[in-house]
Amino acid sequence: MRVLGVDPGLARTGVAVVEGIPGALQLLHAECIETHPGVSDARRLAALFDAVASAVALHRPDCAAVEQLFFATNRTTAMRVGEARGVVLCALARAGLEVAEYTPPQVKEAVAGYGGANKAQVGRMVRSLLRVDRIAGTDDAADACAVAICHHHRARIGRAAAQVRVAVADGSNRLAAAVAAAQSRAAR
Amino acid sequence: MRVLGVDPGLARTGVAVVEGIPGALQLLHAECIETHPGVSDARRLAALFDAVASAVALHRPDCAAVEQLFFATNRTTAMRVGEARGVVLCALARAGLEVAEYTPPQVKEAVAGYGGANKAQVGRMVRSLLRVDRIAGTDDAADACAVAICHHHRARIGRAAAQVRVAVADGSNRLAAAVAAAQSRAAR
Repeated sequence: MRVLGVDPGLARTGVAVVEGIPGALQLLHAECIETHPGVSDARRLAALFDAVASAVALHRPDCAAVEQLFFATNRTTAMRVGEARGVVLCALARAGLEVAEYTPPQVKEAVAGYGGANKAQVGRMVRSLLRVDRIAGTDDAADACAVAICHHHRARIGRAAAQVRVAVADGSNRLAAAVAAAQSRAAR
Repeated sequence: MRVLGVDPGLARTGVAVVEGIPGALQLLHAECIETHPGVSDARRLAALFDAVASAVALHRPDCAAVEQLFFATNRTTAMRVGEARGVVLCALARAGLEVAEYTPPQVKEAVAGYGGANKAQVGRMVRSLLRVDRIAGTDDAADACAVAICHHHRARIGRAAAQVRVAVADGSNRLAAAVAAAQSRAAR
């Protein structure tokens, strides 16, 4: 499975493409999309849209994962991150991708084992899980890697849960058939 | 001048096209774009993007105006409006339009004369300024009309200010020329 992870922002948006299965993940691409502070917000958002669409066209991921906003910062910053997030979600959906969303604690827990991990710990774990010495771009690119890894882990849990559900359904079907057969024999 | 006004939201986005000059404005189009609550936010944002792009392609406005978010509602609502706003700004900029942004008090003041006007007062003034009995769509379409009217009024003020600047510059150039001519005569 090839996952495109995104950590969105108006000034800087991290994008990473991670392929494989948990335990054998490979980093295919990491970058930080930067928009020019000298132009209007509308033009910066349009540039962000085009850059995300280009990354999807170039790397052809199977699905995407985007970090959800946390209101740790002030409202103006939160608002601008919200606008950038909306543009990223829109660009991914228009490219036909299913988009999963994860909160920062979910991402940290998936990568570093607990939701309160700091930036340095997340960075170290991301490099270790992807077996690379460094990740191109700024911290935002490393955060995008963490989002992609989080989706890989969550998808594995989802697949395992689906297998359990199938096994349980199969078991109860067999039990019901055995009961029906016994009742049929007893009635004869 | 043909202005496309937008009042953005994830569930409902008002769009209106108003042409003419202040005092002789004409409503060309008003609609409320609604997105389906049963699908993911990413798909809803993609649908919003496509609908805004279609409206621009159909009505070919000269410029656009978008209402800025006000944090009167709760943060979750504000966040979602922010995402929708980002998508609208992006779609308009990608269509090559210059985008102006106005706060709700600016819009209310331009239309109803003061920034604290209520929805009913704004609605009445919008219908009166556009000389129509009713506006198609919900309140969001009427709000989009108000945003477009606000931009028409602001642009007129901007043009008037530019004319004053030109006149002042022209006047001071003539004065400087007259002074230089007088000095030249005195020196002879």
